[in-house]
Amino acid sequence: MGSDRYEIRLSGSGGQGLVLAAVILAEAAGIHDGRHVAQTQSYGPEARGGVSRSDVIISSEEIDYPKAIRVDMLVAMNQQSCNEYFSALKPDGVLMVDSTFVSEIPTEKAIRIPFTRIAREKAGKTFVANIVFLGALTEFCPLVSRKAMEAAVLGRVPKGTEDLNRSALQAGIEAGQRFKEEMTTRKATRSEVGLDED
Amino acid sequence: MGSDRYEIRLSGSGGQGLVLAAVILAEAAGIHDGRHVAQTQSYGPEARGGVSRSDVIISSEEIDYPKAIRVDMLVAMNQQSCNEYFSALKPDGVLMVDSTFVSEIPTEKAIRIPFTRIAREKAGKTFVANIVFLGALTEFCPLVSRKAMEAAVLGRVPKGTEDLNRSALQAGIEAGQRFKEEMTTRKATRSEVGLDED
Repeated sequence: MGSDRYEIRLSGSGGQGLVLAAVILAEAAGIHDGRHVAQTQSYGPEARGGVSRSDVIISSEEIDYPKAIRVDMLVAMNQQSCNEYFSALKPDGVLMVDSTFVSEIPTEKAIRIPFTRIAREKAGKTFVANIVFLGALTEFCPLVSRKAMEAAVLGRVPKGTEDLNRSALQAGIEAGQRFKEEMTTRKATRSEVGLDED
Repeated sequence: MGSDRYEIRLSGSGGQGLVLAAVILAEAAGIHDGRHVAQTQSYGPEARGGVSRSDVIISSEEIDYPKAIRVDMLVAMNQQSCNEYFSALKPDGVLMVDSTFVSEIPTEKAIRIPFTRIAREKAGKTFVANIVFLGALTEFCPLVSRKAMEAAVLGRVPKGTEDLNRSALQAGIEAGQRFKEEMTTRKATRSEVGLDED
């Protein structure tokens, strides 16, 4: 396993478009950015229990084991998947939640963005919440470029929905940037009042 | 690894809808038929070389290693993928080729069905060749029921294309049945004239 192996897990419920999002993310990194990528869905008894997950492994070397082992970035689109997979996250891993649905968050450091609310408000369709989180993800994942992500999204979505999906992606990128700015401000403020111990 | 582990590899070129077919096959076996399934895409330098592949592993037990090791069934939708992956097939594995594009076939026992030609002639659209081969596959893969396959196809295809995809699936099932009947007849004939040595 290459030392730069980076594991992303997308989790949520069956209808949230996670498989499509994982395929798009894998194609962005694999086809458009030219990295080695393995993308896996697993189905079992839990597939009927309301939790769905897809893993994307990105590496500069060939990938021996294509399932996530210790997750670098976990996206949780509902409360149940956040509860179920948080323990798979590395101690310094990144948790990103859809705060439309996830309210009990096990770490203060989580990235909280209301993907589904943004999809409804900015693109008019909740079903593009998956594209919104792909936009935000490009702001926090060091291995996928915005350009590759846009090409991969447009290569996979149904004809006639390109504008809708482009808006959703852009809304996600902007939400990611806003969250980053707020984090920086908050950190600065906390540091000023002596709260920051990092 | 469970002794009933069954490995299917779908291969061809980038535009042939193999990822979607693999996701549908995995959901048929995993969600609708209730088996353990792992479904994997790998991208690397070969993704830009015109060969695409997706693996589907089906088992009655939890799947430790989600990539195909020794393939039970290989679907090759173009010549290059047939050449590249035939060596991964078990000696008694099943090779199924799209005879629209694959003419050099490394074994006499291959299932040769012109999926793309059938898609064009029976459904009017070559891009449903992937659904045609899923139909044929249900006739040769012991682990996926027709009912589960139909439910999985209809759960994944774009709204408004249900009839088109249902026709494509049905055309594939019928082509699979015809091939089986011909095999039986051929075997009987060869046996009558003393050619059958199995």
